[in-house]
Amino acid sequence: MASGSALSPPQVPMELHHKNRQKLLESLRQHLSLSSRPLHGFVLLQGGEEQTRHDTDHLELFRQESYFAYLFGVKEPGFYGAIDVANGESILFAPRLPDEYAVWLGEIKPLPYFKEHYMVNTAYFADEIASVLQQHYQGSGAPLLFLLHGLNTDSNNFSKPAEFQGIDKLDKDLTTLHPILTECRVIKTDLEISLIQYANNISSEAHVEVMRKAKVGMKEYQLESMFLHHTYMYGGCRHCSYTCICATGDNSSVLHYGHAAAPNDKTLEDGDIALLDMGAEYHFYGSDITCSFPINGKFTSDQSLIYNAVLDAHNAVLSAMKPGVGWVDMHILAEKVILESLKKGQILVGDVNDMLSARLGALFMPHGLGHLLGIDTHDPGGYLKGLERRKEPGLKSLRTARELQEGMVITVEPGCYFINALLLPAMNSPETSKFFNQQVIKKFNGFGGVRIESDVLVTATGCYNMTKCPRTTQEIEAVMAGAPWTISS
Amino acid sequence: MASGSALSPPQVPMELHHKNRQKLLESLRQHLSLSSRPLHGFVLLQGGEEQTRHDTDHLELFRQESYFAYLFGVKEPGFYGAIDVANGESILFAPRLPDEYAVWLGEIKPLPYFKEHYMVNTAYFADEIASVLQQHYQGSGAPLLFLLHGLNTDSNNFSKPAEFQGIDKLDKDLTTLHPILTECRVIKTDLEISLIQYANNISSEAHVEVMRKAKVGMKEYQLESMFLHHTYMYGGCRHCSYTCICATGDNSSVLHYGHAAAPNDKTLEDGDIALLDMGAEYHFYGSDITCSFPINGKFTSDQSLIYNAVLDAHNAVLSAMKPGVGWVDMHILAEKVILESLKKGQILVGDVNDMLSARLGALFMPHGLGHLLGIDTHDPGGYLKGLERRKEPGLKSLRTARELQEGMVITVEPGCYFINALLLPAMNSPETSKFFNQQVIKKFNGFGGVRIESDVLVTATGCYNMTKCPRTTQEIEAVMAGAPWTISS
Ligand SMILES: [Mn+2]
Ligand SMILES: [Mn+2]
Repeated sequence: MASGSALSPPQVPMELHHKNRQKLLESLRQHLSLSSRPLHGFVLLQGGEEQTRHDTDHLELFRQESYFAYLFGVKEPGFYGAIDVANGESILFAPRLPDEYAVWLGEIKPLPYFKEHYMVNTAYFADEIASVLQQHYQGSGAPLLFLLHGLNTDSNNFSKPAEFQGIDKLDKDLTTLHPILTECRVIKTDLEISLIQYANNISSEAHVEVMRKAKVGMKEYQLESMFLHHTYMYGGCRHCSYTCICATGDNSSVLHYGHAAAPNDKTLEDGDIALLDMGAEYHFYGSDITCSFPINGKFTSDQSLIYNAVLDAHNAVLSAMKPGVGWVDMHILAEKVILESLKKGQILVGDVNDMLSARLGALFMPHGLGHLLGIDTHDPGGYLKGLERRKEPGLKSLRTARELQEGMVITVEPGCYFINALLLPAMNSPETSKFFNQQVIKKFNGFGGVRIESDVLVTATGCYNMTKCPRTTQEIEAVMAGAPWTISS
Repeated sequence: MASGSALSPPQVPMELHHKNRQKLLESLRQHLSLSSRPLHGFVLLQGGEEQTRHDTDHLELFRQESYFAYLFGVKEPGFYGAIDVANGESILFAPRLPDEYAVWLGEIKPLPYFKEHYMVNTAYFADEIASVLQQHYQGSGAPLLFLLHGLNTDSNNFSKPAEFQGIDKLDKDLTTLHPILTECRVIKTDLEISLIQYANNISSEAHVEVMRKAKVGMKEYQLESMFLHHTYMYGGCRHCSYTCICATGDNSSVLHYGHAAAPNDKTLEDGDIALLDMGAEYHFYGSDITCSFPINGKFTSDQSLIYNAVLDAHNAVLSAMKPGVGWVDMHILAEKVILESLKKGQILVGDVNDMLSARLGALFMPHGLGHLLGIDTHDPGGYLKGLERRKEPGLKSLRTARELQEGMVITVEPGCYFINALLLPAMNSPETSKFFNQQVIKKFNGFGGVRIESDVLVTATGCYNMTKCPRTTQEIEAVMAGAPWTISS
């Protein structure tokens, strides 16, 4: 594996999106029937457009809007897609490209190409939407459009309903589609799972590659570059699920390090822990994986203590996960295991249940235990209507508070960080100072943090870890010393 | 060089942006004096903001808006910057970050950090702009703001003037700044040139690396991945100037191949020509380089014919470039050299001047000869006010019609492509069919195309080619066979 990969990019079955559409249809029809509404109308989604940077003609590399990608799998910009609720037929609307397109941007594919390639029933041009929908509509009155409009509970932004010339003459329903379609995305089909598994395989392999090549004196961004290269060169993954977090030393306590203002630019030092949160995306479906390891290849006893605290939490959660289990409970379980380890390591003193009540866990793990994963890194659907977000530190950061269901893919990513901005006030507060062994915790000032993140599929009776990275300190030290590591695919 | 690089990322002198500000000040003051206007007011620019993808919390990796980058060099989002026209002082306005930022996104840097790091006179918070400008203003009445508002002649978009709470109380000038600031960007300083040179050095080296490693059976995107990896891993270039164009075989006749709808996904075949248009960016300053070569390492005689036609055009332009020379003339020179070669190669017949008049050159090279290069790949300022765009095929695609001036950096990128959408109508048209040797040109159906693109600095007496790639067929074949290639830096 020093050169190359044991993996290769799989064919993408467009049937996947056909099945997604079928699933939505069933769910939508059921909902309409239950509310005694007619089974007429069109689900209508607008795909994304290419974006230029500010006033320039610099085009950002286009990546499809996620709901549109889910239903239609179209990689090109400027499309619309419709599903006829009455007969289940799907229609793609392609942009009408000018003749010059062929010279500058490539072959102008004819409509039948899109019909066939994306396995829809018909294809038209986007400027024909209004008239085509009028023609196809089998109900009475103006055609009814089910448009996508709803809250993303991670961003607090609303999805923008489709717009096109002539939409004013059609009837619109802005409330029905979003919760139903979002719920479809929460439970993954087998075809979706196999893409997420592939993204996990190639990303796991890339993490191992980076672990092996990381050396004192390198820059953090070189780890990012190696990851990106491995997943693209050998995995065909042009996009990552999110900007790589390549944090070493104290940076590893910055939960979302790596963005433009903190751009993975530190030099790796002897004794540093590395926290690398990197995941590739393949045909829209992502992965989200964090590995933590000592840059010099050998865990110190302090590093082992914190690493194993997090690994024990990770493993305890995986052992407990199964349908019906509440995610808030899993978060608290992870906190508890970490606090127990910190107590065993003499960083904390006192009763662990008292610590939990004092929300001490959130000082060491301020983020949520994990989130739904799919076409978005933070896949939507974490808060069903009526499901309240908790208010307590740590718990309020959970991106879902749901009970697990078979077919969910969710990240399990406990972490333990030494963040002065959180710890110093707590160490000085009369309510919480008693829990800290000030002598011992001093040693961890500047330690950074550890996160272990796996992508986990909920099965009928438990769960399955889709991430294939070395996890025990022994495995990591062995792999970094050159021992083989096989990604079973 | 098989592993690693002869180069390493240079320190970026923030003095560069100080000098850019000084240059603008001088130019703006001169303009105000000439129009008998008072030397009061503030240049005020708003930097870019991080963008999320549609309704999600997926953040695109931020890259600063180019005018703001030019004047202030700030890599972080959410800033404003001002220059006091009266005393020349510069002020940065940083976003006021919430306490949680320290936990999630990293250290909250204090205002003095930005003052020092970006070499400005003072730094405040962005929510203080209105009051700070009121305080600093030395003229009478309300402070006057010179805001950025003007047309980008490549995109036909307008730059968006700064907006902030309280701006309504200030006076605005929307017309003065844009042409003056744009003109400053056209002529590069020595410090700017050295960054563009570095971007050229690392990108040239990466092109050589890709040439060497390209093999029949690979995918086009693997060439992209190798380029990106080399420039990031060894060059510290996190951004490219534009999406990589990795076109092989017939795809090389698609001028802007490589975008999401034509995503570098063909398999490299024996006999294919490769046209790789890829350039890295370092601290905002870019490069834009195209190499064309045979995938199997040996030019066929047809490939040599077309390649040398383009290389001769490239070299003829470089020989003719110097201050005062018109860019339209350079474009026509390139066309002429190419048409002469095609005539020599018996693809075309007849008088070359007649061919030029019939705009035959634009059938083989539909794009412009080159464009200004800097912080944007298509750097602004190509059409001074009053300078008209030509209407003829080919010439209308020129991104500038200016005369060359010392300090301009401009790409020289002649190309020769066999594009059926353009050639077939011309071969059948009564006006132009006589020029084609139909027997010979048939052979080139499916050939693709060749482009050779260098970034060229206009000097006092001529020009200097900043791009360091192998260019003759002999050099290319030798390098692909393993001969050394040194990038002098
Ligand atoms: Mn995650
Ligand atoms: Mn160019």
